[in-house]
Parts: sequence; structure tokens; C-alpha cells
Amino acid sequence: MSAVNAQVSASPAALLHHVRTGRARSRAELVAMTGASRNTISNRVDQLIAANLLAEGGRGWSTGGRPPTLLQFNSEAGCVLAVDLGVTSVDVAVTDLSARVLATAGHPIDIAEGPDAVLAEARRLGRRVLAEAGLDDADVRAVGVGVPGPVEFSTGRPSHPPIMPGWHDHPIPDAFSRWGAPVFVDNDVNVMALGELGVEGSDQDALVVKVGTGVGCGVVVGGRVYRGAQGSAGDIGHIHVVAAEGRSVLCRCGNTNCLEALAGGASLLRDALAAGLPVTSTRDVVDLAIRGDGPALELVREAGRTIGSVLAALVNFFNPHRIVITGGVAQAGLPLLSGIREAVYARAMPLAARTLDVSVSDAPELSGRVGAALMAIEGYLDDDSVREAITS
Amino acid sequence: MSAVNAQVSASPAALLHHVRTGRARSRAELVAMTGASRNTISNRVDQLIAANLLAEGGRGWSTGGRPPTLLQFNSEAGCVLAVDLGVTSVDVAVTDLSARVLATAGHPIDIAEGPDAVLAEARRLGRRVLAEAGLDDADVRAVGVGVPGPVEFSTGRPSHPPIMPGWHDHPIPDAFSRWGAPVFVDNDVNVMALGELGVEGSDQDALVVKVGTGVGCGVVVGGRVYRGAQGSAGDIGHIHVVAAEGRSVLCRCGNTNCLEALAGGASLLRDALAAGLPVTSTRDVVDLAIRGDGPALELVREAGRTIGSVLAALVNFFNPHRIVITGGVAQAGLPLLSGIREAVYARAMPLAARTLDVSVSDAPELSGRVGAALMAIEGYLDDDSVREAITS
Repeated sequence: MSAVNAQVSASPAALLHHVRTGRARSRAELVAMTGASRNTISNRVDQLIAANLLAEGGRGWSTGGRPPTLLQFNSEAGCVLAVDLGVTSVDVAVTDLSARVLATAGHPIDIAEGPDAVLAEARRLGRRVLAEAGLDDADVRAVGVGVPGPVEFSTGRPSHPPIMPGWHDHPIPDAFSRWGAPVFVDNDVNVMALGELGVEGSDQDALVVKVGTGVGCGVVVGGRVYRGAQGSAGDIGHIHVVAAEGRSVLCRCGNTNCLEALAGGASLLRDALAAGLPVTSTRDVVDLAIRGDGPALELVREAGRTIGSVLAALVNFFNPHRIVITGGVAQAGLPLLSGIREAVYARAMPLAARTLDVSVSDAPELSGRVGAALMAIEGYLDDDSVREAITS
Repeated sequence: MSAVNAQVSASPAALLHHVRTGRARSRAELVAMTGASRNTISNRVDQLIAANLLAEGGRGWSTGGRPPTLLQFNSEAGCVLAVDLGVTSVDVAVTDLSARVLATAGHPIDIAEGPDAVLAEARRLGRRVLAEAGLDDADVRAVGVGVPGPVEFSTGRPSHPPIMPGWHDHPIPDAFSRWGAPVFVDNDVNVMALGELGVEGSDQDALVVKVGTGVGCGVVVGGRVYRGAQGSAGDIGHIHVVAAEGRSVLCRCGNTNCLEALAGGASLLRDALAAGLPVTSTRDVVDLAIRGDGPALELVREAGRTIGSVLAALVNFFNPHRIVITGGVAQAGLPLLSGIREAVYARAMPLAARTLDVSVSDAPELSGRVGAALMAIEGYLDDDSVREAITS
């Protein structure tokens, strides 16, 4: 209700954003949208064109008078490197400035080998994808990195990450200094949230739930990642679950019946082994379910129900427009989604659930890379960088 | 991460907001804060002074050169009416533009009598408090109304409110047209959230939990009320609770073991009667607890534990800076707070709980009126109204 941000900004970066997200397609629309003068808009647009960030193309429809010249974001004005750091693999992509993947490569790692070895591998993959895409180091405008643990976003340093021994306080951005571009680092779940919401952004409130070895959640308020007081928002893996009577499962955090202990990938593997299924990894359980194996399907569906029981509470509290499920276990698709929907609709309030859209990611394996690219692009196209680009 | 709102607005309403909230105290500070030109700031400040919204007073400290003239918000440039509509009472206050209460009056009602009778009573109380404060109808700049049910904020109409029969879609603002001022209507819990956070606002993420007959929650993101997709965010009364084994309590919503069914004011009364306590209302149970009655204390504390078990999940998910407990049962104070804290610290993740501030409202009975006043003031001082005030 505060009035501070009621005006739509007309800074050069904001004008670029409006065009890039399709909210405005001409100088006239930018004038209408921001309330800034025709002169101001025209000068700034000219500067953005001179900096190669905007291009003019074609003519729009006119409602009388000369039809307007259409503006386009020049998504080929550079590229970004997107690094998706997992516990057992690192994937790197190079994308254009609309997050379109130009080349990608991955390699198995063990995150516990520590930052020096793992980040050297990420750099090597970075050079490889640039070469594959026919791009130079000088084309790189920014680097985005998603990591499986808490990160102090302003410095790009992991903060006591539980499953990344040796990484606490490591200055990840320094590892990418060869590209002379800004480096943005965030928790993988926040990064995936960006990837799932896509380049066009939106004003929606959404939850992006990653079901991997653990369970985490990216929280999106009005189209932006919400972080909370200590940056730990979305840490839903240790919410206490209403379990079947008598069931008590110890979690690695020391409490019992945490969501992660009952429905994460690790618990899925444990339950599958206990049921005598021929599996050695969570991926095996997911593959069995995809192939239609009855007991595996039931395990995945039950994990979905447990996750859904927590999401039902969060739907009442947060009233999101949509929930997207991603991560390794999300590759199981429908059985997981069915279990989640069943529990959400059983316990969420009708008003909040009425138009709620619950879906599984189209490409769970890509959302980390696309999200890291988007984070890098947004960071690169912020006010300061754009101001610098158009005045240099 | 988007750049759209990265600049601090220099609209007249925004300048007023910066002075009003103590973020800037002189023209020079406004220039530094917004990046706007000295000339622009000076012209707009002069307009705000001419419109009687800002006043000049005293001299600040100088770091060299002429000391700056200090600016002050003129909180006596008008008044607002604040209406706190409850299920069994209506309370009306008149406040100045800093939400300082000048006069207040209340009357018992039954919300089920319907909008005509109840709103007539609110109008009568409005005229009375204005007279008591020595103010005229023409001094009223805006009216704020909090109601115990869901509201479509843009129109001020209740939307299928479960405990307000006859109120669905009623145009509440029309009832206050005699004051010729804008009328803002919202759910009481959102209004209380504003009241608890105070006029100075903040950039904090917070939960304001109302424990009355039912249980609801105002959600504050970055100092603003967060509403969600359908405006039902914070509807935590029907979250499924992890109850003691074998316990199954039917809720009025048709589900079992909802938070409200186990820990709301109505359930407190039910459990007190079942325990043979000499009570006829929730207020009696609260009074017994305040007077130190053992069984009443234990009931209140247990309700606190149940509420805390849900808040622990929300702390993990939302990672707020603070939680404030308000509403009728909050008048019990410490025993309720102790139960809540016990459960929150037992189940919330250490990182999210580390610096979390959980407290009980200083004046639970006033937060509805102060919040309604703040809603009216913020609405009155938004961009459009201020632009109109300084150009007329």
C-alpha cells in the first residue's frame, strides 16, 4: 500500500526490461507505461540501441498516423555461462541473453572434493562450451552459478553448506575471474525457480519444489525470488509431517518425521531397498516407476502424498498461483504429481486451491542451467551495468 | 533481481513517505536518496509545503556550510476514521495522519444483524469520535475498515465471508460516503499486521498471528501486506496439525485436527468446559489464566504449543524476521507465548530461528484500530491523491 514504488521506473535498465519481457514494443508504449516524457524515452532508447542492447525492426500497427517502429531486445549482444553444481555432477551451458542454450556439457564430480578441483572442472567445461558455440572469452557478459547449499548472495560465498564439506565461505566468484565478468551465485533451488518461471518473468506468486536427494523449495513473490530474513526461506525439508500413526523415522537433522526423512530421494531409495526392489540409487527407483513397476509406483506416489500434505499447509498460508515440481524424482512425472495433488486437494482450503496450478517441470534436468543463465542475465542487465554500457 | 524498481522513486508521494518514515529529514537527504536533481526535489517539497503536508522546522547539523532546514511531516493536516469491525463489537477511532488516536468509542453488535444495522452503528460512532476530538466531517481525509472475513481489496466488498452472514458482496465503502473521502476495507488480520508494524513501517518480513475465536495470520513481505493469488494468504486456521496420537477433533470446515479446531479461542472454551472450569466465554478462560489458575494456564500454554508447531513449519518456509501474536487470546500473554516459543524452537531449523523475534502484542485490543488508521493514511497519501493535493 506504500506509495514508494507506485511509479513504473523509466531508467534505461527498466526500459530494456519492459521491451525484453514483451511489456512494451515501441517508444510510444514506453512513454505510456512509464509516464516519462517522449524526449527522455527517445534519448534513452537511442543510447540502448547505440550500446547494441536494443534493435529497431519492422513497423507496428497504427491507430492513425505513422505506424510506430518496433523495438526488439538484441539477445545476441553477448552470452552468459550457466553453471549447475550438483552433489555428483557439474553441468555448464552457454546461452544467449534470452537464456537460449547454445551449447552444454557436463561431467561427474564429487562435491566433497572441495572447491578447487570442482571449480577447475567447471572452468574447463566453460571453455569447452564457448568453443563449441564459436564464442570468445570476451563475449561472456556474466556467469551464473547454482550450488546445492545456502549462499550469501551478495558475496557469492556458501554459508555452512551441510552437504558441501570444505566450501564454507569459499569465494566462488574468484574462480571465474578469467572472464572478467560479474559472477552471481545462489542456492540451486532459487536458481531452479528462476529457470521454471522463464525469461518472460511474471508477477505471479509461485513455489518451485525440488525433489532430489532432499526436498527444497524456491519461493517466488510477485515474480521475484523471496529469501527471508537469513536467506533460508523455502527450507521445507525439515517441516514436521503428519505421519501414519506409529511411524517415526529419524532424520539426519536429529528430529523425527521431517518431510525429507519421509519423502526425499534418499528415503525413497531406503524404502525401495526395504521392500526388496532391485535398486542401488534413487534414479533406479525413478526408472522402475517410469517403466510401470507397481511397488515403485506406489512408493513414488506415497512420497507425493507426503510432500502434498506439507504443500497443502503452504497453499493455505501462501496462496500461490502455481506450484512446479522439479528435481531428479520429478522425472517420475505423473505418479509423483498424482500423489501431491491428492494430498493438496484433500487438505488445502477451497478458495486457495480453486485456481491453483500444480504441475511437474517439462525438463527438470535443465531448470538448473536455464535458471543460472537467467540469474546471470538479470544481474548483467541491472541498472548499474546498463548505465555503464550506455555511457562507455 | 530485476532492475525495474531499483531506483528510489522521487514522486511527491514518495518524497513525503521518506520524510514521514524518518528516512530523510532535509532536501539534501532527499537528493542523496533519490538521485533526483536539487531543483526537482526543491520544487516538489515546496508543493508539499504549500499543500500543508510538509512543514519546515529547525536546523539540522551541518558538515560544513549552511546547516540544512529540517522537514517534518504535518501529521495534523487532517484526520482519518478507523473502524474495527468484530463479530460481537464495533470500535471506531479518529486519529491524526500519524495514526495517533485522538478519540475512540465502541459498541456491542452482532455481525449477523447484517451490514445496514452494523454500518449505521459504525457511522454513529464515527460522528461521536469526531465531535469528541473537536473535528469536522471536512477534516476526514480517508476511512479505514477492518472486517472479520475475506475482502476484495480493490472494491471493499466482502467475498463469501463464513462468519458474516448477509455481508457477501456488500459495498462497505458506500456506507461512509457522507465523509466524501476514500474508504479502504481489508481483512482484520491484514489490518492488524499494519497496526503491529507501526507507522514507521520497515522492510522486514513478518507474521502477525491473530488468536481470537479462530486463528489467522497477516503476512508481511518487505514491510507490505502480502495477499497471494486470491487474497487468501495467511489463512492458517485450517492447516492440519500433528496432534497427540489418537486425538481427532472435528473442525467446522469438515476436516479433522485443523489448527483452529485444536487451538483457537472456541476450542479453548470447549476444552475449559470439558475440564469443568467455571467459564462461559473464551474471555473467561483468558482471565482465569491471567489470574494464575493452574488448569487454565495449562490449557492456554497447550494452545500455544499447537500454534507453535504450525509456526515452526512456517518459520522454515518463510524465514521471517519476527512474529507478533495478537487477538483476544493474546491478552493471556506469557503462558501463550511460552507454549508457542517452546514448539517453534523445538522444530524450526536453527538458522531460521536464530535471530527470530517472537513476541506478544503490547496492546492486542488496539491493533485493529491503529491498523485501520494506517491503511487509510497510506491509501490517502498514495501517488494519485498527493498529486491531486499539490496541484489543486
